[in-house]
Amino acid sequence: MTDLSWGGMQRLHVTSQTIPYDILVGRGAWRALRKLAQSDYTSTFLLTERGLWNQWRRPFLRASGLKAARSLFVPSGEASKSLRMVERVAGELLKQGADRRSLIIAFGGGVIGDLGGFVASTYMRGIDCVQVPTTVVAQVDSAIGGKTAVNVGAMKNLIGTFFPPRLVVADPSVLSTLNERAFRSGFFEVVKHAVLSGPRLFAEVERALDGLRPERAATLGPLLARAARVKADVVSRDEKEAGLRRVLNLGHTFGHALEEATGYRRFLHGEAVGWGMLAALRLAEILGLLGPAESQRIAAVIRRLGPLPPVRDLKAERVWRLLPRDKKAVGGRIHWVLPERIGKVRIVADVPSFAVEAAFYDVQRADRHE
Amino acid sequence: MTDLSWGGMQRLHVTSQTIPYDILVGRGAWRALRKLAQSDYTSTFLLTERGLWNQWRRPFLRASGLKAARSLFVPSGEASKSLRMVERVAGELLKQGADRRSLIIAFGGGVIGDLGGFVASTYMRGIDCVQVPTTVVAQVDSAIGGKTAVNVGAMKNLIGTFFPPRLVVADPSVLSTLNERAFRSGFFEVVKHAVLSGPRLFAEVERALDGLRPERAATLGPLLARAARVKADVVSRDEKEAGLRRVLNLGHTFGHALEEATGYRRFLHGEAVGWGMLAALRLAEILGLLGPAESQRIAAVIRRLGPLPPVRDLKAERVWRLLPRDKKAVGGRIHWVLPERIGKVRIVADVPSFAVEAAFYDVQRADRHE
Repeated sequence: MTDLSWGGMQRLHVTSQTIPYDILVGRGAWRALRKLAQSDYTSTFLLTERGLWNQWRRPFLRASGLKAARSLFVPSGEASKSLRMVERVAGELLKQGADRRSLIIAFGGGVIGDLGGFVASTYMRGIDCVQVPTTVVAQVDSAIGGKTAVNVGAMKNLIGTFFPPRLVVADPSVLSTLNERAFRSGFFEVVKHAVLSGPRLFAEVERALDGLRPERAATLGPLLARAARVKADVVSRDEKEAGLRRVLNLGHTFGHALEEATGYRRFLHGEAVGWGMLAALRLAEILGLLGPAESQRIAAVIRRLGPLPPVRDLKAERVWRLLPRDKKAVGGRIHWVLPERIGKVRIVADVPSFAVEAAFYDVQRADRHE
Repeated sequence: MTDLSWGGMQRLHVTSQTIPYDILVGRGAWRALRKLAQSDYTSTFLLTERGLWNQWRRPFLRASGLKAARSLFVPSGEASKSLRMVERVAGELLKQGADRRSLIIAFGGGVIGDLGGFVASTYMRGIDCVQVPTTVVAQVDSAIGGKTAVNVGAMKNLIGTFFPPRLVVADPSVLSTLNERAFRSGFFEVVKHAVLSGPRLFAEVERALDGLRPERAATLGPLLARAARVKADVVSRDEKEAGLRRVLNLGHTFGHALEEATGYRRFLHGEAVGWGMLAALRLAEILGLLGPAESQRIAAVIRRLGPLPPVRDLKAERVWRLLPRDKKAVGGRIHWVLPERIGKVRIVADVPSFAVEAAFYDVQRADRHE
């Protein structure tokens, strides 16, 4: 992975077993699509949500020059990540004449990115896909790395592919129309990347905390680029989750269980990851892996990013029961990603259940006393 | 691709961008699964059809040693190649505890192979798959090369992946319970491979014609292995259909249109390919690419493999209209694969429509006069 400044923009590079690709992060990143538009795609399809598209259609088309792209709309929300929607989108692509040299542009957050990536990876056995992430989580995390997926029943991401995008263009200006809660929730993933990365990025996140407001989004390019770089770096070294890539699950084991225990209605994904990181910190402390000073420093940042929706009323047994369904578990085990210090995590396969229970108990108790 | 004799069995090797794999063709090929069974899969799932499984369960389990495999049944027939069935199979796998280190064995013909391969390629973003083809077409063609697919509406194979199997084991004995028509129809693909390969394999097919009966299936290992080798050779050199692999579409452009024009009810796939090859021969003659002697020699083999269900009653205009929907068409064009002689085909992109119409007219006329 190399990192070259390009005007005000960062250009990151991801290596891949199949085709390497670039990620452009910063104001004006959409302009990079002008080059693509001139190449020899037979047609271009833009997969997006109607509300988002109404807000950003003009500036996006102006910057990208993609006047001839046809838009396909899917309903907003997780329910669109389904095989039924894959079938509908593929049928629509066929009807509108998409062939093997057509291009799909996924313009949206994680749902659009995962769905658009999956459709692109399977339509006629794979056509090119460009990711245009429009949420914080998508810009620093989900649009990078080529993981695509849809849900089956209650099981998130059960069906998916590894399929590198052709290009990722992340302009932070688009984050300015997110509501405050959605905007802030994305920064829990930025904190996660900072914990994985080290003290330098972590201190930068601490300094940025006071200014994290949607209306200042356009100024966040450099911070988002550094957070995106953490993901780009990890997936370049472990494209298919053989080992290293697992570190990205920091906070996600508990996080997923919390989302599932509340039917994906109470928490935004980032908020669940926030709680998941607090539980992982406590678990690491209980196991003697992490000292209290580092733990408190990380927890303080998560608390300042909050408030988080409550967890105190959740039945702990139900949350534990949902933990082993995390599909990172091989043969039924859970691989916990636990911080040892800022900049270093350890993957622990055999955590005794009493420690897990104690960690979540402590997190719930702290939530009660707030 | 190398080709090593191994007892009475042929071992073919396919190179792949991701993971290379072996194909074992011959009596006793199923025994190769004993080695796999001892490796560290957490669980093994066998995707098959109930009728076929009832016939072959005992000998397969005896040879393979896979006593602990759990079977998942799908209804026989093309309708099982759907995203709905993918969803059902994936849900069942999850319910039965399949994880990232589970193995799927696709035990069946083209439908089972395509569906099982697609599920394996997408379940938790990809788990290992072994192909155990049980029809002639599957043994020499569809189980080799890693193309997986399901249909969307009337559009065959619209959604799919390139995903190499871990291993392919083809025992010709299993063909003995096919009915005569299903058995013979598979040999149209063998003829196709012989035309692609050259005079040696073609002459071998000519010599084998009289003995092609299901009850003699077990003796056909060497012929089937040589036909399978043609496919293995092509896909090793062009895994993702960038160019060379297109030659495998010989007979398939008209073939697909005929299948679609008759709602996939009149022709078995191989039979449609038989007609498709006759049309391609005529088209190649009209364009001056192929001499009458070679054309008649190939046509004679196809005729002897017949009888083919009639085409004389089909509305030619309807068949032509269905041609451009072939998804090999880039930007709407059709790439015709046309024989120049036995052992050499040419891909022609701009065939004038009058020639296509004349070729099909001649084929229909010949059918009327039989």
